[in-house]
Amino acid sequence: MTDRPLYFEDYPVGAVFEGGRVEISEADILDFARRWDPQAMHVDKAAATAGQFGGLIASGWHTGAIMMRLLTEVFISPACNLASPGLDELRWIRPVRPGDILRLKVTVLEARHSRSKPDQGIIISLVEVLNQRSEPVMSLKPISLMRCRPD
Amino acid sequence: MTDRPLYFEDYPVGAVFEGGRVEISEADILDFARRWDPQAMHVDKAAATAGQFGGLIASGWHTGAIMMRLLTEVFISPACNLASPGLDELRWIRPVRPGDILRLKVTVLEARHSRSKPDQGIIISLVEVLNQRSEPVMSLKPISLMRCRPD
Repeated sequence: MTDRPLYFEDYPVGAVFEGGRVEISEADILDFARRWDPQAMHVDKAAATAGQFGGLIASGWHTGAIMMRLLTEVFISPACNLASPGLDELRWIRPVRPGDILRLKVTVLEARHSRSKPDQGIIISLVEVLNQRSEPVMSLKPISLMRCRPD
Repeated sequence: MTDRPLYFEDYPVGAVFEGGRVEISEADILDFARRWDPQAMHVDKAAATAGQFGGLIASGWHTGAIMMRLLTEVFISPACNLASPGLDELRWIRPVRPGDILRLKVTVLEARHSRSKPDQGIIISLVEVLNQRSEPVMSLKPISLMRCRPD
């Protein structure tokens, strides 16, 4: 978690938040996918090697879970963050393979006060998960509800 | 996994796929969130009880992982399913709480042949995760790439 008490006002349009370093192993890919996404490209090494990507790739929901963990570390402030209503335009851009090292870049796209709740604001951001070659592997636009700074 | 060998042609617009039954416990919510989404509303029972929802709620990415598991059971056919390029309009509609029982409903919204790859089709679906009161807790519109039936 970020330890600074950030509020809605601390996320102006254009602000960038970056960080994290998560290495993903073959065992990690297999463990996650056996439980949540047991398709051959994620759990069957021989079939994956013969398939579309020439090897095992991580479930997109595994990359999403890593993204969420990094979001709590580099972007979300416990002081202001409320439950999210959703996200738009999630794209899995490149495969994530064993040995890849993932990090996060978050850019604030929109920041507006809530009309119905004057003590809250709405942030739309572009979240990019980048690999060790700085290539985006996943992107999405989450909607974040955040408390405004108390008077 | 579905055991029938379905292909792109087996997902016409309007087709509905339903099923699954996943009960989510407090321990499940804590385990997932401690690893992937350690915000107080998901991991700290006392803080969650005093907070926005009056109790612990599941991480939206946990509901997403359950959704993915159910998708492999009721919708995805290993015979034709290729890696997904992404999804749109994901919404977390209601909180998921300990003891909730989740199931899946998938409705095909669009089905079109790929222009660049004549042996593949693109399916857009509306995926709804429903609780034991048949209330939607999450919805999304995944983009699925599927192989066409071989001649």
